[in-house]
Amino acid sequence: MARARDRKTRKTDTLAMLATPALDAWVATASAAGAPHMVPLSLVWVDERVVISVESASVTARNLTASGQARLAVGPTRDVVMIDALLDKAVDVTADDALAATYAAQADWDPRRSAGYVFLVLRPVRVQAWREADETAGRTLMRDGTWLV
Amino acid sequence: MARARDRKTRKTDTLAMLATPALDAWVATASAAGAPHMVPLSLVWVDERVVISVESASVTARNLTASGQARLAVGPTRDVVMIDALLDKAVDVTADDALAATYAAQADWDPRRSAGYVFLVLRPVRVQAWREADETAGRTLMRDGTWLV
Repeated sequence: MARARDRKTRKTDTLAMLATPALDAWVATASAAGAPHMVPLSLVWVDERVVISVESASVTARNLTASGQARLAVGPTRDVVMIDALLDKAVDVTADDALAATYAAQADWDPRRSAGYVFLVLRPVRVQAWREADETAGRTLMRDGTWLV
Repeated sequence: MARARDRKTRKTDTLAMLATPALDAWVATASAAGAPHMVPLSLVWVDERVVISVESASVTARNLTASGQARLAVGPTRDVVMIDALLDKAVDVTADDALAATYAAQADWDPRRSAGYVFLVLRPVRVQAWREADETAGRTLMRDGTWLV
């Protein structure tokens, strides 16, 4: 097994992972009644924000608009980046050409070609990264919206 | 791209995936206040039940004990099995030798070797499986706890 990475290395690895083209994430949200939801979605990392795109009528959009909270996972289960994020803004996909162009270039699809999609721009407040149990210590890279390294 | 699988094939693929040794799942739960949580955990499939093991003080255990609900994802983001499940029972890892032996044999670790772990036995109520967008139709394999195929 590789040695546990230090925080600096994990931040470098995390930012590299988040910049991967056509990156998928697991996006967990919850209803006000406490029902968990989770779906795989494309994730685009722009200016220290996570951007996802979903149908505005989807469970994810409704949960996030109501609660403002999401927890996202990127990477395989033994090389994970976990992001707790708050909703910064919801933007109609036709309302911000720069954002839409960046999203389409980095993701593998363009939501402007489908009806009823919205961009959800999320602000990370906590970021954690670990591979195996030996990386449990030192896994928190961002806390309260501030990088620790 | 491969042709969309029919439901029968997806059920066969799903059961094969669930029987994989050392299988990991993403497990999403929520607090009563609607805060989403999600972590990667070993998943063991026993007698049509999902079994996970966590520390009894963990957020996952607390959420599941309170709400009784979880949503689990197995497989990569483009070959997913999604399971909505209800808590059947929580069992101390030292209280059911048969379950513990089955879990340890199928997972890659034995929670009896650590302090404070519990088995959470979950009953699937909805199972969905899809790879790409062409498999959105026909993705529901179990509804209200009953296999549709």
